[in-house]
Amino acid sequence: MSETSPTPQGAARLRGFIAGMTRLVEAAGTDEPRLLAEGGALLGGLVAVDDWLPDRFAQPHPEHYMQYLLHCDPLQRFSVVSFVWGPGQRTPIHDHTVWGLIGVLRGAEVAELFAPGTATPHATERLEAGMVDAVSPRIGDIHRVANAFDDRTSISIHVYGANIGAVARHVFDAATLAPKGFVSGYANTVLPNPWRG
Amino acid sequence: MSETSPTPQGAARLRGFIAGMTRLVEAAGTDEPRLLAEGGALLGGLVAVDDWLPDRFAQPHPEHYMQYLLHCDPLQRFSVVSFVWGPGQRTPIHDHTVWGLIGVLRGAEVAELFAPGTATPHATERLEAGMVDAVSPRIGDIHRVANAFDDRTSISIHVYGANIGAVARHVFDAATLAPKGFVSGYANTVLPNPWRG
Ligand SMILES: [Fe+3]
Ligand SMILES: [Fe+3]
Ligand SMILES: [Mg+2]
Repeated sequence: MSETSPTPQGAARLRGFIAGMTRLVEAAGTDEPRLLAEGGALLGGLVAVDDWLPDRFAQPHPEHYMQYLLHCDPLQRFSVVSFVWGPGQRTPIHDHTVWGLIGVLRGAEVAELFAPGTATPHATERLEAGMVDAVSPRIGDIHRVANAFDDRTSISIHVYGANIGAVARHVFDAATLAPKGFVSGYANTVLPNPWRG
Repeated sequence: MSETSPTPQGAARLRGFIAGMTRLVEAAGTDEPRLLAEGGALLGGLVAVDDWLPDRFAQPHPEHYMQYLLHCDPLQRFSVVSFVWGPGQRTPIHDHTVWGLIGVLRGAEVAELFAPGTATPHATERLEAGMVDAVSPRIGDIHRVANAFDDRTSISIHVYGANIGAVARHVFDAATLAPKGFVSGYANTVLPNPWRG
């Protein structure tokens, strides 16, 4: 994997996003509508320019999508994850149990949205690069997400209201919607260092 | 370099230290005596057990000491750095301009302490593994630090009241004490990920 650093300007973009989200969780506490609105605006700014994600956190895996932790709030009030989708890759149907924001950095993704206990999606959304969407138990928490492309990598940046890799949540059988517990973890043993200036 | 992960217990130790320091800077603000007292106790706990530093942040360089950033507070109120001293390596005489805590994790180090404008050290301290010391403009900010050993690596964990790698500070000529501006930076493009659980 490449150790390529982003430009100083790119590092400043990630650093500024982390600082902004930190100030937001300190100010907003558990006010989810505010977190989604203001956090969504911050995430929209982050994914508006594709110059800041180091290559090693943009590497697809040949067999399944990858989840690279980019930053975890020290008090685990939020986490920032790079989802890297190889051609045609998708998640199982799953929930989150906490609020989440999804911003597409590169390519595009398609999400199918499910109501609890219903095996047929009630909506399908396509998110292009630069777009931001939200999930939560309050506004709809169950979906299946896929790379919109069969021939290229897509990357989305996700922000969650917890250290998402350690959260006990669920995947659902596509036919029966039977739930199964899962903890997603992270692929990476190291994080980007955006503090070098 | 090894990608060896510490044990889950070791990762929890670093995670707990980062969380504890975050709560401390939020509670103590700019109360430096409190930061040094409570931060020093937290750092003492961190360096009391040598099971948590991933190998890639413990690698000496053949020619000079290494400074690996382990964590930077998102609002840059503190940073945590692994100093790795090869045999016989030492710093120039330097200042910090912010508070700092030094805890020895492995081996031992020797510090010579200087009063501003005086080229002869007024004291020499030897810190063994597990010991913690402090610096700041208030209590004494100019020193020269060396590995206490000529035949083995020593490692100390430093905590500073800023993103120290980006702070404009000074090195001093050993003969004349003439100051020269410097910014230390960091050797590493990636940080440890202690959030995997
Ligand atoms: Fe999801
Ligand atoms: Fe120093
Ligand atoms: Mg002292």
